[in-house]
Amino acid sequence: MRHFEHFPPGTAYELGATLLTGDDIIEYARAWDPMPFHLDPEAARRSAFGGLVASGWHTGAVVMGQFVRALLADSACQGSYGMDEVRFLAPVRPGDELRGRATVEEAAPHPRRPGTGTVRFLVEAVNQEGTAVYRMRTRLLFACARPVDAAHRAASEPS
Amino acid sequence: MRHFEHFPPGTAYELGATLLTGDDIIEYARAWDPMPFHLDPEAARRSAFGGLVASGWHTGAVVMGQFVRALLADSACQGSYGMDEVRFLAPVRPGDELRGRATVEEAAPHPRRPGTGTVRFLVEAVNQEGTAVYRMRTRLLFACARPVDAAHRAASEPS
Repeated sequence: MRHFEHFPPGTAYELGATLLTGDDIIEYARAWDPMPFHLDPEAARRSAFGGLVASGWHTGAVVMGQFVRALLADSACQGSYGMDEVRFLAPVRPGDELRGRATVEEAAPHPRRPGTGTVRFLVEAVNQEGTAVYRMRTRLLFACARPVDAAHRAASEPS
Repeated sequence: MRHFEHFPPGTAYELGATLLTGDDIIEYARAWDPMPFHLDPEAARRSAFGGLVASGWHTGAVVMGQFVRALLADSACQGSYGMDEVRFLAPVRPGDELRGRATVEEAAPHPRRPGTGTVRFLVEAVNQEGTAVYRMRTRLLFACARPVDAAHRAASEPS
């Protein structure tokens, strides 16, 4: 099981690939984001997108699912503080395959919770042509493998 | 239909209320975010949360759905650039009712796309006790009601 110590900055993880069909896009939109250009091929054709596009939340959820299945579900992750700089970089259309990747940008022992540390990941996804379609940063809390880590805690004190 | 001009800064919109059952939380987790503490009541009891909690992505999707149904679906919204400062402020547990609100923070004509403007919303949600559980900012693109808006475009030029 992966703990805080197992995510050194610079490490990158390939998260897998997911194909999005038109039906997937419409089903997600109906439940969570019923904008006409996510839901209705005809309305989408008349929209600025010129055709059906996936909800950005759908893209984000697909990539989060890849991240969890590839890396987090079998880890000592204790939750997320949230996300920053979530960007929908290019439209995701029926038949696109999303390929996620997560890169450790920062790892620091938690200043007030001994035995835990936060890891900031850059999460990105490209489509089958290699075009970047999605990006975000997220900070996750992990338990440390060693319950008390004096060296790490000392390092986290303000100098 | 609401266009760019109909979102003056300071305007706040109540987005409605959604009850999350334990089954809702588990069903979302199974599809999109299968962390043990979102998926398995027994594993959740042993986790730092002490019981089942909703995926932050679930909370976000519920509130996005409220935002779309209350305001965006019948608007001239042409899509989103993404989100910033997405924060999961407190755990969402089975039986919690999420009540969303969106406040216009900024509205500006698009500098390069005549006839459109971007609106930045602060989106927040509280539970049934009024505790803030979720917050994010998002920037959306809207068509203007008037196709050409010289005054707005002039205002957007760098001085």
